[in-house]
Amino acid sequence: MPDTSLETLIEALRKLPGVGAKSAQRMAFHLLQHDRPGALQLSRALDTAVTSVRHCARCNTFTEEPICGICLDPARDAHQLCVVETPADQATLERTGSYRGLYYVLMGRMSPLDGIGAREVGASNLLDRALDGVVSEVILATSFTAEGEATSHVLSEALKLRGIRVTRLARGVPAGSELEYVDLSTIAHALVDRR
Amino acid sequence: MPDTSLETLIEALRKLPGVGAKSAQRMAFHLLQHDRPGALQLSRALDTAVTSVRHCARCNTFTEEPICGICLDPARDAHQLCVVETPADQATLERTGSYRGLYYVLMGRMSPLDGIGAREVGASNLLDRALDGVVSEVILATSFTAEGEATSHVLSEALKLRGIRVTRLARGVPAGSELEYVDLSTIAHALVDRR
Repeated sequence: MPDTSLETLIEALRKLPGVGAKSAQRMAFHLLQHDRPGALQLSRALDTAVTSVRHCARCNTFTEEPICGICLDPARDAHQLCVVETPADQATLERTGSYRGLYYVLMGRMSPLDGIGAREVGASNLLDRALDGVVSEVILATSFTAEGEATSHVLSEALKLRGIRVTRLARGVPAGSELEYVDLSTIAHALVDRR
Repeated sequence: MPDTSLETLIEALRKLPGVGAKSAQRMAFHLLQHDRPGALQLSRALDTAVTSVRHCARCNTFTEEPICGICLDPARDAHQLCVVETPADQATLERTGSYRGLYYVLMGRMSPLDGIGAREVGASNLLDRALDGVVSEVILATSFTAEGEATSHVLSEALKLRGIRVTRLARGVPAGSELEYVDLSTIAHALVDRR
């Protein structure tokens, strides 16, 4: 058990993802030595976020309202529903400026080896959402990793069973790439999906 | 300006040393999605540490008392004063179990290029401490980097001018090393300092 408030702070910082014992110590020393206002700011920001950030009742993303701004926006196309893993992925898609439909945010992806299956990523909520009678196409935009592909596959099967049209983001050569430096699996997919 | 409490939290996390935009986002999502109790714990730990952690009036390390436990320990040898850069370095020396004197913690090191000189590392406080009439030897245990060496050099000159015996941690081959894999500068120093 940590026996001083400095050790308690180091322990609490270690809980952050990607922060080990040395980084936590460095962070604690930095805050106490050089940035006490920053430490208090962070403390308040944590409190406020825990109190006020909840999940959108329609798309499951983080929001401070019962329904998020995108879901409430009448200018969005309610026939398209794009499934992403995280709010960060959603933000990335928004920045492209090329999608005007709605979203469903899984807040994770399936990882059977870690015991995270369809239930844990809230697949049934997604099905309820997609079967609202308005959505006509679900675009799966999970990651192109083994886990993201598995998630996409399972969701795709479940949605198709219920008669919903399902598409997946195209795989292919990234913009600005020279072919010589693109990995072979990407090129193989780009060949198959050529248009 | 961040306009939601989630963005405010991400901004506050970015102030931590070594945390960029992506890590801050990942940390915020992790806390809100998987570890809200951890977020509240961190918030409380920050508050408590900022309120209660101060500097020891004698050795300058972090403590919650006016004078830290080591400085108050009558079993420590008050004739020896070991100068370290950080409380982490002090903790490392303590773990060796081979030093029974007292410490002075600079809470940094000189870095002339960044405008951190003798004044910023509190050299005059160290001189006052070393000239208490009891200290007979100051052991410089700053890092063996360019900045640590510069710090050591400047402090050494100032202390010697005032008639205090100054020593420096020995440089040499680390325990458990095979010579073949030790860098040449370390071997050169070990040759010069052979005993």
